[in-house]
Amino acid sequence: MRRILEIHPRGAPAYPVLCGPDLVEGLREAWQPGWKKAALIGDDNTLGMFGEHVATTLRELDVEVLKLSFAPGEASKTRGTKQALEDAMLRAGLDRHAVVVGLGGGIVLDVAGFVAATFMRGIDHIFIATTLLAQVDASVGGKTGVNTVEGKNLIGAFHHPRAVLLDTAALAQLPPDELRNGLAEAIKHAVIEDAALFASFEAWAANGGAASLRPPVDVIAACVGIKAQVVADDPREHGRRKILNFGHTVGHAIEHATSHAMPHGQAVAVGMVIEARLALARGRLSEEALVRLVALLTRLGLPTRPPCPFASAAPYFSRDKKNRDGNIHCALPSRIGEIAPVDGAFTTPVTVDELHDAWGS
Amino acid sequence: MRRILEIHPRGAPAYPVLCGPDLVEGLREAWQPGWKKAALIGDDNTLGMFGEHVATTLRELDVEVLKLSFAPGEASKTRGTKQALEDAMLRAGLDRHAVVVGLGGGIVLDVAGFVAATFMRGIDHIFIATTLLAQVDASVGGKTGVNTVEGKNLIGAFHHPRAVLLDTAALAQLPPDELRNGLAEAIKHAVIEDAALFASFEAWAANGGAASLRPPVDVIAACVGIKAQVVADDPREHGRRKILNFGHTVGHAIEHATSHAMPHGQAVAVGMVIEARLALARGRLSEEALVRLVALLTRLGLPTRPPCPFASAAPYFSRDKKNRDGNIHCALPSRIGEIAPVDGAFTTPVTVDELHDAWGS
Repeated sequence: MRRILEIHPRGAPAYPVLCGPDLVEGLREAWQPGWKKAALIGDDNTLGMFGEHVATTLRELDVEVLKLSFAPGEASKTRGTKQALEDAMLRAGLDRHAVVVGLGGGIVLDVAGFVAATFMRGIDHIFIATTLLAQVDASVGGKTGVNTVEGKNLIGAFHHPRAVLLDTAALAQLPPDELRNGLAEAIKHAVIEDAALFASFEAWAANGGAASLRPPVDVIAACVGIKAQVVADDPREHGRRKILNFGHTVGHAIEHATSHAMPHGQAVAVGMVIEARLALARGRLSEEALVRLVALLTRLGLPTRPPCPFASAAPYFSRDKKNRDGNIHCALPSRIGEIAPVDGAFTTPVTVDELHDAWGS
Repeated sequence: MRRILEIHPRGAPAYPVLCGPDLVEGLREAWQPGWKKAALIGDDNTLGMFGEHVATTLRELDVEVLKLSFAPGEASKTRGTKQALEDAMLRAGLDRHAVVVGLGGGIVLDVAGFVAATFMRGIDHIFIATTLLAQVDASVGGKTGVNTVEGKNLIGAFHHPRAVLLDTAALAQLPPDELRNGLAEAIKHAVIEDAALFASFEAWAANGGAASLRPPVDVIAACVGIKAQVVADDPREHGRRKILNFGHTVGHAIEHATSHAMPHGQAVAVGMVIEARLALARGRLSEEALVRLVALLTRLGLPTRPPCPFASAAPYFSRDKKNRDGNIHCALPSRIGEIAPVDGAFTTPVTVDELHDAWGS
């Protein structure tokens, strides 16, 4: 695995991000000698597919491995799942020197990271991200958490991993729609921060990318680098980190309105288009930029139109934890590669009517 | 209220500790203008006794107050209680700008602080400590958490309050045994760090203290100061903070063995005597020091003998999260006012036989 980044979170130790197909090599490089017991946490799918491979590697490093899994899917991302994992770890006698290894996609990493954040008041953890979406998004930033009936990620903590491994071999086993989910977030990073990266995506999509759907390591590295940089500048999301929410205000509402029938990445793709249309309506973004965004998403097989009428999504805007002050806040791009602040703010309050107009048919 | 300390935790904002009988004045001084909604969390007792007074004061500061309480006692210090509080806060629409006000003793502060630590990934909280035990111990240090069937404080987080109010008027309403619980921890602070403070306790106990059981503000301030200093030097308990565990290795086992029939402070009093006897047996502590400790505790009406045979406490030593490596670790004083490190370590591994010998009849 290649060391593509070193992340320096505020108030927490620096950690490496390794990327490549050889997980055994990556684990050996990232593993710390003091980690003698590990809770290997995944969902039933990820632990079934990759668990034994990881466990065997760890055992060769003289590590005692406790494998723990839960049912896949957003419905498992709860305080109950966290509690069951904690209880199993306590019963097995894991102590504050144990390490959590989160193995899977974003849901697994969010839950595993949150378990580590509060076990014995915080123990070390590392992430092995096996989906493109998790690789370009959830794996760095330190956000962990679970959902409640009131909304997503409402209970959680900031807790940074000690190493992140992006397993590109695992991508070969992902269904095309899962790859597309990751591509949506990857493209988001380009839109908010890096026009050259956006152009690379366009070129790659036109030259085989639309068929393989697996971006080269350099593109993955660039996306993670953007996420890491934005997060480093504003770890607690007081300001600039909000630009990462481009496409997400609308995306989250769509996920809720469809009861997650439309998965996160696809909902974000639609969300980006609607929020870009809002930016266009406000004279903030050019029509050309919107057209390029829609064209790239379409070429990669991502949706650009909402799967449900506005009326079914509308109630969910006010429930978003970012909108609890009564406004709907969107991070609106000013051009491909930039979300310029307006009066120092990186999100713009928009009205329900504006959103309705941008929703389209 | 008097500002007795300013605490500077690593990686978190500085915060004041106010001490005195005028809670209204203290709240007005500590309150921040951005705090517009508060979850006032106590147990049924503390909220019944002081809740309306605090809520009225906050409403006068234009704060919307959500009062939440749970059944008093260690049995409530669970993930379930935390979840119920979180759900009530979410249903009431509290967002990341809300503040948690923990009102009560150590259990309330530990739970309320943990709720604040993971609500929307961490919101502000302040503590109003109404018991002497909480005032000299749980109110500062940043440790929050809950118990599981496997042991105490196994799930939790480090999360520092934005202000701590020590309400000395509340002490007038505490039963004598509750005051004694606090005195045990207060005396512990003197034993581990401040010989002059220990002498002040002796003088105070001989001159009315044994009757009133309410130490003067200066003594409370000195105890909190010791706790704050030790914690500041070693926030994550990698080294010197372990001296705060004097009396607690044995104390926790006694609490478990008696199913909490012997409360925390009294168990710590017994624990200090047994651990001091261990220190004596190792030639580390003088007999005179042990005698002074036993005499002071006795004069204040605190127990100095275990309430149960060694055999019933023994199984709990290995379950303590500090002993999960198979050893039993005790912080043993080298004299009144000091726990000197041995080979750089602030705790000493002791054997079951040594503990058995020190248990006494």
